Amino acid sequence: MIRSDILIIGAGPAGLFAVFQAGLLKLKCHLIDSLGIVGGQCSELYPKKPIYDIPGYPEIMSQDLIDKLMEQIQPFHPGFSLGQSAETLTKTTSGEFIVTTNKGVKHSAPVVIIAGGLGSFQPRKPPIKSIAAYEGNGVDYHITNPEKYRNKRIVIAGGGDSALDWTIYLSKIAKELLLIHRRDEFRGALDSVNQVQSLKDQKKIELMTPGKVIGLKGEKKLDSLTIDHDGVLMNRKVDFLIPLFGQIPKLGPITKWGLKTKGNAIVVNNSLDYQTNIEGIYAIGDINTYPGKLKLILCGFHEAAITCHSVFKKIHPDKNNTLKYTTVTGVQGFDGSQKSAKPSVVKKIK
Amino acid sequence: MIRSDILIIGAGPAGLFAVFQAGLLKLKCHLIDSLGIVGGQCSELYPKKPIYDIPGYPEIMSQDLIDKLMEQIQPFHPGFSLGQSAETLTKTTSGEFIVTTNKGVKHSAPVVIIAGGLGSFQPRKPPIKSIAAYEGNGVDYHITNPEKYRNKRIVIAGGGDSALDWTIYLSKIAKELLLIHRRDEFRGALDSVNQVQSLKDQKKIELMTPGKVIGLKGEKKLDSLTIDHDGVLMNRKVDFLIPLFGQIPKLGPITKWGLKTKGNAIVVNNSLDYQTNIEGIYAIGDINTYPGKLKLILCGFHEAAITCHSVFKKIHPDKNNTLKYTTVTGVQGFDGSQKSAKPSVVKKIK
Repeated sequence: MIRSDILIIGAGPAGLFAVFQAGLLKLKCHLIDSLGIVGGQCSELYPKKPIYDIPGYPEIMSQDLIDKLMEQIQPFHPGFSLGQSAETLTKTTSGEFIVTTNKGVKHSAPVVIIAGGLGSFQPRKPPIKSIAAYEGNGVDYHITNPEKYRNKRIVIAGGGDSALDWTIYLSKIAKELLLIHRRDEFRGALDSVNQVQSLKDQKKIELMTPGKVIGLKGEKKLDSLTIDHDGVLMNRKVDFLIPLFGQIPKLGPITKWGLKTKGNAIVVNNSLDYQTNIEGIYAIGDINTYPGKLKLILCGFHEAAITCHSVFKKIHPDKNNTLKYTTVTGVQGFDGSQKSAKPSVVKKIK
Repeated sequence: MIRSDILIIGAGPAGLFAVFQAGLLKLKCHLIDSLGIVGGQCSELYPKKPIYDIPGYPEIMSQDLIDKLMEQIQPFHPGFSLGQSAETLTKTTSGEFIVTTNKGVKHSAPVVIIAGGLGSFQPRKPPIKSIAAYEGNGVDYHITNPEKYRNKRIVIAGGGDSALDWTIYLSKIAKELLLIHRRDEFRGALDSVNQVQSLKDQKKIELMTPGKVIGLKGEKKLDSLTIDHDGVLMNRKVDFLIPLFGQIPKLGPITKWGLKTKGNAIVVNNSLDYQTNIEGIYAIGDINTYPGKLKLILCGFHEAAITCHSVFKKIHPDKNNTLKYTTVTGVQGFDGSQKSAKPSVVKKIK
C-alpha cells in the first residue's frame, strides 16, 4: 500500500504543479499515470513544440515546461506510479480512499485529485488477430526503456512524428530496423523526415512502403511477422514490433467511480474549490468542466492552487492556514532543503 | 480620448497578462497605472527578490517576471497611461465607460478590468508644512526619469531599500547628494548598505544621521531646506528633495464607483467570470475577492484568461469563440508579426 496525503491521478502539468502547492502546505503527494513518463500531453503529444501562452514564458518548448515543473517540485519528493492506470476506487470505513491500478498496486490517501487531462492514453492498435497475446512479449506500443532494443531486430510501424523520431533514435542501437508504413508519405517535422531519408539512403534502416503487418507468429513471445508489401506477402524474423499509430485518450475506468460527468469531463464546483460530486475527490486541469471552463495549462495551475488550499483545510480543520508568500517565506523542502530570498539587514552606516 | 476594447486599471502581472489573453482574441487593451512604471508590486516593492511559486519557474526575480510578461504581450501593442490614477468613471448612453485620470486624461472602452493589486500606491509623505506646494516643483516621491537629476543638488530622505538604491544610482550623476535619515541604521540588502558606506567613505555622497527635513523654502520652486541634524538646525541649498518613506496602497477613488467591496477588495462572481456587481466591470488579481480567493500571481493569470474570454462574448455576442491553442495556431501580433510552431510537413521518403 502506497500512502500519501494527496493521491494525484495524472502527472501532466496540472498534477505536477499540485505537488508544489501541496508541498508548500506540507502535504505529501503520490502520482499515478498511465504513461511511462511524466508530463502528460505535453511530453507524449508535442514535447518539441512551443507553447506561447504560459504566463511569463513568451515561448517555451512543451518538454522544457515539464522539466521546469519537475525541478520546481523536486523539494517535495513526490512518489510516482508510472505506466499504470487507476482502475478501482473504494473508500474505507475510516474515510480513506483506496485506488488500485491495473497492475494491482494499491494507493491510499484521504484525498484524491484527478488531473487526468484528456484521460489516460490508450495506444491505437493495428487490427491484427492475436496481437493481444504478444503485448509485452515482443509488441510494445510505448517506449519507456530504449536500452531494451539494443542489438535487437525491430520493426516500427507508422508514419507520424513518433514513428520518425523513434526510427532515428533506435537506428543507432538496433541490430536491424525496418520502418513500415501504409503509404510513402510521412507526416512530421521536416528535419525528422529528412533524417529518416538519409538513414535509408545510408542503408542504416530499411524502409517498406506501402506496407503493413498482417500477422504475428511465435511461441510465448514474438518471433516473426507476416508483412503485406504492396500486395506481396512475406515473412520476417523480428524481436520486437513497435506500432506507433498514435494515442487515443479515454476517461477509462474512472467513469465507473460515480463521478458526475458532462461529455468527456468531470463536473466540479468552480465556485469554491474544484471538488467533484464525491466529497474528497477533486478534478483539475483539462479533465474538469464548469461554466466558462478554458482548457488551458495556466488554468490548471490555478485550479491546483485553489484545490490544495481547500484540501489543507479538509485534512487539518483545526489548523490556521494563512497564505504564505514564497518571496517572504521561501520554500522548505521535505528533505530539509531551503530556498529563500536574501534577507534584508539592518546595519549602521557611519 | 483614448479608446480601446478593454481598459485595464493596473499594470501589474495580472493586468499585463490580460493584454496577452485579450490579444489572442484580437481585443486591444489600454492600461492605466498610478506608478510611473509597469509591474505593480513586483516592480515597486520587491523587484530584486525571487519568487518561487510562478508555475514553471523554480525561481524568478520579480522584475524578470515583469520583463518576460512585457515581452510576451509586445505583439499586442498595449497603450499605457502611467503615473496617473483612475479618478472618475461614467457611462455613456451608448454603454461605453469613460474613465478620467487625476491628470484629466479620458479613456473610453466598452469593458473595464480592474487589476489594481493592493490599490494605487500613494507615497508616505513627510509631515512638513507647505510640502504640497513643492510637489513636482522640487519635491519628488517617485523617480521616473533619473536624467532629471543630472548635475543637480539632491537630498534623499529615508533609510530603506529605495533610499539606498537611488542614492547609489544618483550618486553617479548628481552634482551633490545628501542622504538623510532619522537614525543611523539602514534596512536593505547587505550589498546596498555596504555600497552606500563605501560612497560615504569616498566622499561621493554626504550622510546625515540622525537628521530630518523640517522646512522647505523657495519661490515657485524648491530652493533650500531647513534640516534638523541631531538637534542642530541648518539651512541647505538644493534643487530636489526626494523623500523615500515607502508607499501605501489605497483603493482610492474607485471606491466611489459603486462597486461592491469587502474589506479592501472588490467582490466578484468567481463562479462565472470575475465580473463585479457592475455589468462590464471585472476585477482580477489581488484586488478581487471571492470564496477561497488566494492572492497569488498565478491566480491572477487564470482570472485574466477567464475574464478575457467572457469579455469577448460580451463584445462579440454574434461571433463564435472557439478556444485556440497557441501551440497549434501560434500568436498573430497586431503589427502583423507572427510566432508559430514549425509546421509538420507531409513528405515522401523514397
